[in-house]
Amino acid sequence: MDKVALWGRFKGRLIHDADTGFSLDTSRLSFDDDYLSRMEPLMTRAMESMAALERGAIANPDEDRMVGHYWLRSPQLAPTDDIRTAITTTVSRVKKFAADVHAGVIAPKPGATFSHLLVVGIGGSALGPQFVNQALNSIADPMTISFFDNTDPDGMAKVLYSVPSLERTLVVVISKSGGTKETRNGQLIAKAAFQAAGLDFKSHFVAVTGEGSELDVTARTEGWLARFPMWDWVGGLTSECSAVGLLPFALQGFCVDTFLAGAAAMDSMTRRSSIRENPAAMLALSWYHCGCGKGNKDMVVLPYKDRLELFSRYLQQLVMESLGKELDLSGAVVNQGLAVYGNKGSTDQHAYVQQLRDGLHNFFAVFIEVLRDRSPRTQATTALSKLHPEHFEVENGITSGDYLAGFLLGTRAALFEKDRESVTVTVPEVSERTVGMLIALFERAVGLYASLVNINAYHQPGVEAGKKAAAQVLALQERVVSFIRKARRSVGLEEIANGIGSPEDVEMVFKIVRRLAANERLEVESGASLFDDRYHCA
Amino acid sequence: MDKVALWGRFKGRLIHDADTGFSLDTSRLSFDDDYLSRMEPLMTRAMESMAALERGAIANPDEDRMVGHYWLRSPQLAPTDDIRTAITTTVSRVKKFAADVHAGVIAPKPGATFSHLLVVGIGGSALGPQFVNQALNSIADPMTISFFDNTDPDGMAKVLYSVPSLERTLVVVISKSGGTKETRNGQLIAKAAFQAAGLDFKSHFVAVTGEGSELDVTARTEGWLARFPMWDWVGGLTSECSAVGLLPFALQGFCVDTFLAGAAAMDSMTRRSSIRENPAAMLALSWYHCGCGKGNKDMVVLPYKDRLELFSRYLQQLVMESLGKELDLSGAVVNQGLAVYGNKGSTDQHAYVQQLRDGLHNFFAVFIEVLRDRSPRTQATTALSKLHPEHFEVENGITSGDYLAGFLLGTRAALFEKDRESVTVTVPEVSERTVGMLIALFERAVGLYASLVNINAYHQPGVEAGKKAAAQVLALQERVVSFIRKARRSVGLEEIANGIGSPEDVEMVFKIVRRLAANERLEVESGASLFDDRYHCA
Repeated sequence: MDKVALWGRFKGRLIHDADTGFSLDTSRLSFDDDYLSRMEPLMTRAMESMAALERGAIANPDEDRMVGHYWLRSPQLAPTDDIRTAITTTVSRVKKFAADVHAGVIAPKPGATFSHLLVVGIGGSALGPQFVNQALNSIADPMTISFFDNTDPDGMAKVLYSVPSLERTLVVVISKSGGTKETRNGQLIAKAAFQAAGLDFKSHFVAVTGEGSELDVTARTEGWLARFPMWDWVGGLTSECSAVGLLPFALQGFCVDTFLAGAAAMDSMTRRSSIRENPAAMLALSWYHCGCGKGNKDMVVLPYKDRLELFSRYLQQLVMESLGKELDLSGAVVNQGLAVYGNKGSTDQHAYVQQLRDGLHNFFAVFIEVLRDRSPRTQATTALSKLHPEHFEVENGITSGDYLAGFLLGTRAALFEKDRESVTVTVPEVSERTVGMLIALFERAVGLYASLVNINAYHQPGVEAGKKAAAQVLALQERVVSFIRKARRSVGLEEIANGIGSPEDVEMVFKIVRRLAANERLEVESGASLFDDRYHCA
Repeated sequence: MDKVALWGRFKGRLIHDADTGFSLDTSRLSFDDDYLSRMEPLMTRAMESMAALERGAIANPDEDRMVGHYWLRSPQLAPTDDIRTAITTTVSRVKKFAADVHAGVIAPKPGATFSHLLVVGIGGSALGPQFVNQALNSIADPMTISFFDNTDPDGMAKVLYSVPSLERTLVVVISKSGGTKETRNGQLIAKAAFQAAGLDFKSHFVAVTGEGSELDVTARTEGWLARFPMWDWVGGLTSECSAVGLLPFALQGFCVDTFLAGAAAMDSMTRRSSIRENPAAMLALSWYHCGCGKGNKDMVVLPYKDRLELFSRYLQQLVMESLGKELDLSGAVVNQGLAVYGNKGSTDQHAYVQQLRDGLHNFFAVFIEVLRDRSPRTQATTALSKLHPEHFEVENGITSGDYLAGFLLGTRAALFEKDRESVTVTVPEVSERTVGMLIALFERAVGLYASLVNINAYHQPGVEAGKKAAAQVLALQERVVSFIRKARRSVGLEEIANGIGSPEDVEMVFKIVRRLAANERLEVESGASLFDDRYHCA
């Protein structure tokens, strides 16, 4: 196709929203109008399911739950008064709490203010706040932020050591179920750190969790500063517009209302019944086209903007966790999914565009184009602003931002030349509004795509297996340690495995004792080989 | 296969090095001994090519270059005295320079010391230092670090605003070719910032680049503080053991000798002629097995350790840029490659293990297991150490590190249960030595795998296309702006495209003017539709 024909195709395909400046370009995908016509009945059905879900249908049949993340930014659409009130009350409470923290009304002690935020959460309870933080933060923010997003003690030590002042740190512990072990561990470690520093931890701790959960009970019993609710009709992956996302958001000084309005504006666009005018429908159809409805191609997400670097990772979670399913809704084995990776352009061009252009043809690209070079969130004092004037030229008439845009357009063209397909999402700038729009766009696209391939996007049965297996490992460790302690002498692998009545678990025993020894929790007597080492308690 | 049989397989397969504590476990891959025997001739040939390369053969035929990254940690193996001397002299100069900076002998002004490092580089000139920084940094380090790793003006403004003190900042500009535009832009922006702050930039700037390159000439002409060499026999992707990696490494206070010794120790292990005892050979054969020598499966890299989070991204570059090739060495179109993604466990379990276990069977996993919970690099004052004692228990007898290990073992088992294959790499701790080992292991595995599939791992012809296309976009922008300026009235898209004699480039013209308008560098008169807007100079 020559450039002139492509221009016609581009103009015909472009979905552009004049109010928000958003656009979606699917002109670099090879499907034709026939494909759209052919898919129309399936997509119409998907949109009807989505409409039912928005009206409060049970969209998650396994868990008998409604799926209501769209109500979070349009509470007027919530199916009951209770839900509507829960949403609006929570948003008001979040904003009030943040304002009180900023004003020093809620403070670690009279005259001091909270200036740092430690978020304890993992998965859906961390990636949203992390993405949004990177997208919107500024040195002018009222609070800096760090995360416990794993159960790595070394990682948590590093974070604790780097927190500017524990005394001025507010801790937000986020877990929808309230029973996530990584988060529970982080909470205990944070609590112990406050106690070791001689601080009254409970006046620093806030919980975001389901009512009555283990975390909720702990927070209530221990008398934490505040508790904010999570609801069973909001999935962890789509919780950025609930208190999970909004509390850190507001505390960092970002504008909650603008963010929710951005998401709501995208929701309006993605409810359009005309498929060709509906960006989420077109995005879902693009995925379906590229991967033949089976995820045959990986989705490489390339935002050309440092602030959006974590968006790829946010989408990795949203998309893979929603779409990676063994069974379809009829119970047939389908092993669905869509692999997602990417960091940012043009940096990634130096990391793997070689493969994208010349190598394996196993992907399609999603470019995120940001029109305005400087984010309105990049605030600085006058003195700092001088360090890098907005239109600084690296060559006559050319800015570094022109280069960034040139690399995006150049790569898009270079890929297309080699029949590598791509979608381009354009936003006018990186701001609360556009971040809300991007999240809402992909949330809806994932939901529609799940309908197209007939799977439940709203449960994660596979995650349980790893958790259960981990619990078994820990239980085994306790038996192993108890056996070695009682033995009061050095014992070998087989002896331990037999002694605890699990001879078949000898490999796991090996893994456990070797690690405990490396951490000086067991002592080793070296044998002829690694497998002949003998262990005793220190 | 039952657990007892698996234990036998595990013991038989495990490559363990007692000196370093390193091991590689391929027991969770389904290949059998026949496969290894069948592949032996091909692998032996690959190892012979590697040996020839280490002796100084031209391993990069397109570019007529030697490939010498292995010499960087074993200069005694370098093929000429000149190269040997270049390596040892550079390592000494790097160490001396860092020591002088730390001692205040090299200082921004008398009595002050450099306490912050700004690295300007992209791709191979950034990812190594970024990975190593995250793996090894500590609050006790003599210098903190930040990066310009893109050409995003907003991203650079954010970094500049957050630099603690420009006056105490040392800038290291890294570009092998010395002509990388992103890096050149970063250099100019950093220079302007120093000048705006009234500082003599040249006494803060250091270059790492090829002799006689554009950057080298600039540094010499402007009288920068120091220049360190890069050589044509070191590829950007494998430059962490050259001045590219070592200069930031030493400046951050990490031990260069231990790092190089770790890499050299792995090189010794990966030169073993017995395939079954050679971890790089077994790793390369694992990739070959999983992807049928065609990259049919993605490699998901899962280090269970926060400090190693960027290792997946480092490998993404090393592997994809080396292996993603259109042609094989005979000139046949093969479209080779191996897609790599991942962040860290157990965090990623909450992001996409659902898909890995239940969904698309389009991947294999590489687990990175770290035995020791606390890195020797996690240094802290006594007061800080109290905040998180090393063996803090979250339950009776159980630490958060036990959970981390349990999640790794549990996930490995849960994947295997579903026939998802995995490799496990084990290192005793995260330290200079093991980071050197990990880098060297994968460098060699990539080289061997490239031989197995008969491609040149050491050139990147595909990257040029994107750069060229970007240059065309910038050239077009200049013509567009010049045309609009001369027009002295509002002009439409077609008029501009025709006016500059490139009617076929109207889509690119649209992209360019729309972005310039968003940045207030052009003014817009709105038309009936987006495509009817007219533009004039402000």
